[in-house]
Amino acid sequence: MSAEDFRRYGHQVVEWIADYLSHPERYPVLSQNKPDQLKEALPSKAPERGETMEAMLADLDRVIVPGMTHWNHPGFFAYFATSGSAPGILGEMLSAAFNVNAMLWRTSPSATELEEVTLEWLRQMIGLPDEFKGVIYDTASISTLCAIAAAREAAGLQVREQGLGATGAKLRMYASEHVHSSVDKSAITLGIGQAGLRKIPSDGEYRMDSRALEQAIQEDRANGWQPFCVVATTGTTSTTSIDPVPAIADICGREGLWLHVDAAYGGSAAVVPEMRWVLEGSDRADSLVVNPHKGLFVPVDLSVLYCRKMNVLRGAFSLVPEYLRTGEGEEVKNFMDYGPQLGRRFRALKFWFVMRYFGVEGLQDRLRLQIALAREFAGCVDQSDDFERLAPVPFSVVCFRAHPKSLSDEADLDTLNERLMDEVNRRGRVYLSHTKLAGKLTLRLAIGNIRTTREHVKLAWDELNEGLVRIRG
Amino acid sequence: MSAEDFRRYGHQVVEWIADYLSHPERYPVLSQNKPDQLKEALPSKAPERGETMEAMLADLDRVIVPGMTHWNHPGFFAYFATSGSAPGILGEMLSAAFNVNAMLWRTSPSATELEEVTLEWLRQMIGLPDEFKGVIYDTASISTLCAIAAAREAAGLQVREQGLGATGAKLRMYASEHVHSSVDKSAITLGIGQAGLRKIPSDGEYRMDSRALEQAIQEDRANGWQPFCVVATTGTTSTTSIDPVPAIADICGREGLWLHVDAAYGGSAAVVPEMRWVLEGSDRADSLVVNPHKGLFVPVDLSVLYCRKMNVLRGAFSLVPEYLRTGEGEEVKNFMDYGPQLGRRFRALKFWFVMRYFGVEGLQDRLRLQIALAREFAGCVDQSDDFERLAPVPFSVVCFRAHPKSLSDEADLDTLNERLMDEVNRRGRVYLSHTKLAGKLTLRLAIGNIRTTREHVKLAWDELNEGLVRIRG
Repeated sequence: MSAEDFRRYGHQVVEWIADYLSHPERYPVLSQNKPDQLKEALPSKAPERGETMEAMLADLDRVIVPGMTHWNHPGFFAYFATSGSAPGILGEMLSAAFNVNAMLWRTSPSATELEEVTLEWLRQMIGLPDEFKGVIYDTASISTLCAIAAAREAAGLQVREQGLGATGAKLRMYASEHVHSSVDKSAITLGIGQAGLRKIPSDGEYRMDSRALEQAIQEDRANGWQPFCVVATTGTTSTTSIDPVPAIADICGREGLWLHVDAAYGGSAAVVPEMRWVLEGSDRADSLVVNPHKGLFVPVDLSVLYCRKMNVLRGAFSLVPEYLRTGEGEEVKNFMDYGPQLGRRFRALKFWFVMRYFGVEGLQDRLRLQIALAREFAGCVDQSDDFERLAPVPFSVVCFRAHPKSLSDEADLDTLNERLMDEVNRRGRVYLSHTKLAGKLTLRLAIGNIRTTREHVKLAWDELNEGLVRIRG
Repeated sequence: MSAEDFRRYGHQVVEWIADYLSHPERYPVLSQNKPDQLKEALPSKAPERGETMEAMLADLDRVIVPGMTHWNHPGFFAYFATSGSAPGILGEMLSAAFNVNAMLWRTSPSATELEEVTLEWLRQMIGLPDEFKGVIYDTASISTLCAIAAAREAAGLQVREQGLGATGAKLRMYASEHVHSSVDKSAITLGIGQAGLRKIPSDGEYRMDSRALEQAIQEDRANGWQPFCVVATTGTTSTTSIDPVPAIADICGREGLWLHVDAAYGGSAAVVPEMRWVLEGSDRADSLVVNPHKGLFVPVDLSVLYCRKMNVLRGAFSLVPEYLRTGEGEEVKNFMDYGPQLGRRFRALKFWFVMRYFGVEGLQDRLRLQIALAREFAGCVDQSDDFERLAPVPFSVVCFRAHPKSLSDEADLDTLNERLMDEVNRRGRVYLSHTKLAGKLTLRLAIGNIRTTREHVKLAWDELNEGLVRIRG
């Protein structure tokens, strides 16, 4: 493509994005496409001859947009709502143009060192001690996998060299029953297996019961298991509950276990001074994951693993074939040494743009607003005769359900809430997802998009109430 | 950021990128930064107040660009040269704006179905049978890890449930001594261990010796190992050699082993009909990885795993917590089920843009040119009295070294070639990397950037000859 053509189409794309971001409400948040609708609208084979950008951009509106669920829409309240903020998008544009592989320092000194700079900035912002160093991965799934791989390495079984089969070791790790599924997947991937992950019961507020943890470890040791790691969560996926990290850190200290804190969701809130408490005890963790692409307005993907024992993490993965040897030696950091992936995008640039454009205060203001809006919504639920809240609200996610006075059967309530969720989502002005708490189908309102205002939260509340009236007839 | 501001800065960034891509020669390909130079140029903490985009864009030129090694520069001949093509960059801009997580069909039907559409197009383009279905991961490292995890699952040991330690199984996989380091890393990560990966010797042209493979399997079975997987490579990293896949497929068939083909580099060439032979035998593979972000002008990251047994891959990873359950059921594909990562960017969009903009013929023309240029360069080497070629050139990578008639000591030749590489790279007009072949330090010229023309290859040849004259005095 000539420079003139790139200019022309680049400007068209910028106009398109500006328009998209300023009028998201024209689209239903949740795509109304039927399965296979997009596949049926496109040719079954690639074009022989090149097509025009005009045709491609036309298909963007005709085919792609109707099949989008709009995560960047202010009415997106499902899962953990996220944001691709404007400075983050501009950063991604530049990263795509540079197209570097930040595997070695030499293959992109700027990407490597900006990764160190931005992660040092974030470390200070969330108040972790300075012995923590960071590395950027694509997702929290990989950050967690790497943390547990480091824990496995620290167990001293020479798993790296011999493999787990030869050791015959029955490794066991612990996490609350509310831990994210990526911890289960890490156990599976790393060869520890589902049996090697013991789920610890939680208390009435969905926090790991630390006494049950301690008992489980003793019981397992007596039965020939080798405990090696505990994953504590700061901001669980269903309710954003916070495990008692200080008590868990005590246990890990006594038992010699690796403590990994999953603060993928909750860690961002610690940027706000009055929320700093959510990371209490995490200063004693061996590793901690926090996702700027969740809570800090950075476009996907960008997950950060902080680790206090980077040499162990490196020992779990480093492997340098001749074709990747460089003359810089130990003087520089080659981030490929710290994980399974050789290919590494220049992800730090968008994060640097986001932190500079908003500044620490700007990020704090936005996070404070989200927490305040969640509390306001929780207040509406608490005051309503037709709804009830099902969990505390430490961050900006509210767990609740419709519970009209006339209904008491749990199965009926589940059916009602599922219908209500589908009804609200079908209308497309807001999008909510669900979980199950103590067997109850639970709706979640997750506030996290940078464009979400009080009006959007109010709209969600209205949609829920109006939806309830409609389906109850 | 207001829509007007996004427009303004977005247009500035587009102008910056257009300028960058049209005059890359103004920068040295390999960054001339010293270690810590970027870190020292930036503040040690994040700004309290937000800064202007003007300040950030000024720092792009002042701080970031000098520390870049320019992978999108036509003089980049190191490792495997890649390209962020213009339509690919435009696709990435839009993906960043949509900011979806393509974990579930429901969370982005377009991302899910466009992934299926583009991978079906590519499958046809490289001539794989239609029982192969695909999934996009970030990197070949992860594609390979997932393939081997599927192979481990297919071994029938209930590793997923029990873990490898409890099975006590001594799993063993096989690959040539020239296999990519990501296969070693996969063995480590998956708990198979370095001992669980047996490297098979290669022949004089760096291809796996299939008879040695067969012997190794027999020997291992006799010694209590459980063989489960063979990784064959189409386009090894050092020399782009091609393992004898048909013979290896015969062995895997007889022995009941999973055959994974690493065509991360070499697979793209099969888009050219007269290069289709490079995938001979791959139709019998269980899985195959090909990287559009290597050979097909797609910005990083986008790696494709084709698998003939998607149910096995799914069985190795699928795990659906309540908060991710949706009503669509088996009618749709939820790509989170096929790997360790829950978070998944909308990567298919840039690939769709690239395939449509160039068309199959446009991609073929560009790949043909790269192969032709590599052969021309190889011809120069072959005709020179001062250089010699060290491996065949099936694709567009040439392995060679300086070897003036007056020198015969291997240590002296290694020293000379290392100095020559450093001298050429220091000048910054081209960038080459190295490997070792049969103990000899070997230079590599890897042609892969879409902007590389005959003139740039000629420039590399001139730089090498002039550099040799300078350092020999």
